[in-house]
Amino acid sequence: MKATKIVIIGLGVSGFIAAKTAKKVNPDAQITIIDQKEYDMFSACGLPFVMEGVIDEFDELIHSLPLEKMNMVKLLKHRAVSIDSGNKVVTAVDIETSEEKTIPYDSVIIATGCFPFIPPIPGAHELMNRGVFVVSNPENAKQIVDYSKDISRAVVVGAGAIGLETAAAIAAHNIDVTVVEMLSHAFPRAIDPDIAKVLERSLKKSGIKLMMSATVEKVSGDDRVTSVTVNGKSIPADMVIMASGVRASWDLAKDAGCEPGNWGIKTNAKMETNITGIYAAGDCVETVSPINHKLWMSQLATTAYRQGIAAGTNAAGGYETYDGSLTTFVSVIGSMEVAATGFNQFFAKSAGYEVVTGKASGLTRPDWYPGAKEITVKVLADARTGRIIGGQAVGEDGAASRVNLISLAIKGNMDLHDLYSAEFAYCPAVSETYDPLSKACEFAIRKMKK
Amino acid sequence: MKATKIVIIGLGVSGFIAAKTAKKVNPDAQITIIDQKEYDMFSACGLPFVMEGVIDEFDELIHSLPLEKMNMVKLLKHRAVSIDSGNKVVTAVDIETSEEKTIPYDSVIIATGCFPFIPPIPGAHELMNRGVFVVSNPENAKQIVDYSKDISRAVVVGAGAIGLETAAAIAAHNIDVTVVEMLSHAFPRAIDPDIAKVLERSLKKSGIKLMMSATVEKVSGDDRVTSVTVNGKSIPADMVIMASGVRASWDLAKDAGCEPGNWGIKTNAKMETNITGIYAAGDCVETVSPINHKLWMSQLATTAYRQGIAAGTNAAGGYETYDGSLTTFVSVIGSMEVAATGFNQFFAKSAGYEVVTGKASGLTRPDWYPGAKEITVKVLADARTGRIIGGQAVGEDGAASRVNLISLAIKGNMDLHDLYSAEFAYCPAVSETYDPLSKACEFAIRKMKK
Repeated sequence: MKATKIVIIGLGVSGFIAAKTAKKVNPDAQITIIDQKEYDMFSACGLPFVMEGVIDEFDELIHSLPLEKMNMVKLLKHRAVSIDSGNKVVTAVDIETSEEKTIPYDSVIIATGCFPFIPPIPGAHELMNRGVFVVSNPENAKQIVDYSKDISRAVVVGAGAIGLETAAAIAAHNIDVTVVEMLSHAFPRAIDPDIAKVLERSLKKSGIKLMMSATVEKVSGDDRVTSVTVNGKSIPADMVIMASGVRASWDLAKDAGCEPGNWGIKTNAKMETNITGIYAAGDCVETVSPINHKLWMSQLATTAYRQGIAAGTNAAGGYETYDGSLTTFVSVIGSMEVAATGFNQFFAKSAGYEVVTGKASGLTRPDWYPGAKEITVKVLADARTGRIIGGQAVGEDGAASRVNLISLAIKGNMDLHDLYSAEFAYCPAVSETYDPLSKACEFAIRKMKK
Repeated sequence: MKATKIVIIGLGVSGFIAAKTAKKVNPDAQITIIDQKEYDMFSACGLPFVMEGVIDEFDELIHSLPLEKMNMVKLLKHRAVSIDSGNKVVTAVDIETSEEKTIPYDSVIIATGCFPFIPPIPGAHELMNRGVFVVSNPENAKQIVDYSKDISRAVVVGAGAIGLETAAAIAAHNIDVTVVEMLSHAFPRAIDPDIAKVLERSLKKSGIKLMMSATVEKVSGDDRVTSVTVNGKSIPADMVIMASGVRASWDLAKDAGCEPGNWGIKTNAKMETNITGIYAAGDCVETVSPINHKLWMSQLATTAYRQGIAAGTNAAGGYETYDGSLTTFVSVIGSMEVAATGFNQFFAKSAGYEVVTGKASGLTRPDWYPGAKEITVKVLADARTGRIIGGQAVGEDGAASRVNLISLAIKGNMDLHDLYSAEFAYCPAVSETYDPLSKACEFAIRKMKK
């Protein structure tokens, strides 16, 4: 293969994996990676666990990558300011010296990630860093920890993974936490209200207050945050965490002429944008659902990883596709594990499915084995064919492993009976003879027979 | 439905589930269950954990079943002595009074289970219960615990699940344990030597001695066991556990005219024997492998459960099939979890497959998350098509959950690329971004491309 020049913009999961893969596919590739950070990479999903104290230091989340050893050029503290697809050059600016550099490319991979969305709530921007915070990197997560030391009451805006994981992390330090969610239940985009209920019960038990279907209308305070107004009522608060979702960092791509979708940069299955030679991967792109091949958003590390493999392979002259994401995820919130894959009932109905569901609660081990935990598993299928289209689980243990099985069943176009009759390993120290997942499928099958 | 008379012989997993299912399918069914035991049922898989001390009492493994409440007749302490398929009656004898009872049936389900095989080793039978023991029920497991109190050295014959789980349980009480296995490695029927090696290293580290490719030629002692002879060499031993496999309890079935297979009673997919109206399920039957539909043996609680569902449904006039077993299992031995499904390399080759394998070791969580455990995962596929035909995993955690995914992939006729590209949930508290299972598939795919 020829010595392809590849420029990668953004050193996160997809950027790094794209670089590594490109080098594997074409060892002669000349790879330049541009990133604004001072260090190579950090594990964003680990931030709540440092905030909580499960992990000692934020430094443990910051990783040095052997990029120079892999013969790559690394431009840290540089901002990519433009991609000129006509002349095939990327322009980057040294953030410290303002020096401009132009880097020629054969392929460029945009892996610029996403940024926290801050809703236009009066006071939110004004009091930013004076009580209002976001969680998106070790720096702002550390700010929260430092600020938390002197306060007693916090409000978290948004009951998605970042919001709830942060709420549990802060609550672990004896801070009174209220989570305010605009929609009706926890993880509204990912799970159904009945599964959310199980999680919400556990959160409430641990002392976290939940305000669902509630809107934060105002953040108040002079020098620092002192209260928020929710549904017309003032609530005292020393700190407000904005966890109302993230948005794709796609300005650079759009300026370069890359076609935007609804939520991210559009690509084909090769992760190539509408402009030949410009690829995009990770949190900044839009993907499809493998269930119905319609547009879908998946801002997960696992998605970024696989998209990085495809983008890196193709940018280096190989061939690899990424076939979409089921947004299979797991989140650990206090003592609870919650996981989901595919469509929830809301999205399934929106996509035109008549849905049959099966839900079962049971134990992860026999009741006579120490440490058996309660788990609730739900499976969603197309009521006409029985084909599995989604699943959710919540419990103190084992939610991810059940949801992974449902994810694989969706991937294999399996129906309820296939998953019901699947053979799972049993040993009292690990599992039950008849898993709650099998039971959930059994219940759904019974509903279909009616 | 008419009031079918169903006689179930044997109250284990398959007998009980068959009874429960039959009653669900036909609430008017008149069900009689015959068993020799004094109590309803026990969880055999829990025995090693009581022996080890993880569970306090053997009584916790003994379960009372609501059979009378379900309008079933229960004949405990009764032995079924014959099935007369011409007159459709089962004859049972009250073990205490020798009273004979004849019970008419429309359907009979033979769920007589299995018994421990004791190899014809001189001294083994003679010293039974005087140092020589088997593990198959709470009574003999308790005998082992009692006998163990005064001894310091034990030999376990057989390195399958029962042998190794028992070895670890005994070793936990500071008894010097040597496991003697005739074949070359641990779990010889289920896993490959390279995966066994990982387990064997851990066993040795914990102080358990292993003698592989070794034969116990003699058990010696006058009043009690004092030594065993292995490969011509005498080894001092106070106790010998015979864990050299189990055999189907099929005499009753054979006497009734049911056709025997190589290892168990032959049935069709409805779990019906060659004699109309006589069904069989559980450890006493032979099954098929769903991979190649050839005869296969699967003496697992999970298999018994599913076969019980099919036998009970059909015996009650419904329709249900059992499609064979991949012998998906997990065993916990000391700190190690070992699991497997489908064919290992030996059986795959015997079945005519050209095998490609992929093996990867990795962590169950990121290395910066506390409690990350090493796991080794191996996947086996048909080298011509990439279709997955088996898998194994070993580690301190998560072996079963990977093997369950491989089992489901086999069920779904998936190939290596399907499983490789499956989407698993990531959260540092639970998993890694790129699972060792995905990596194992990646390695196997790379070998296929060559």
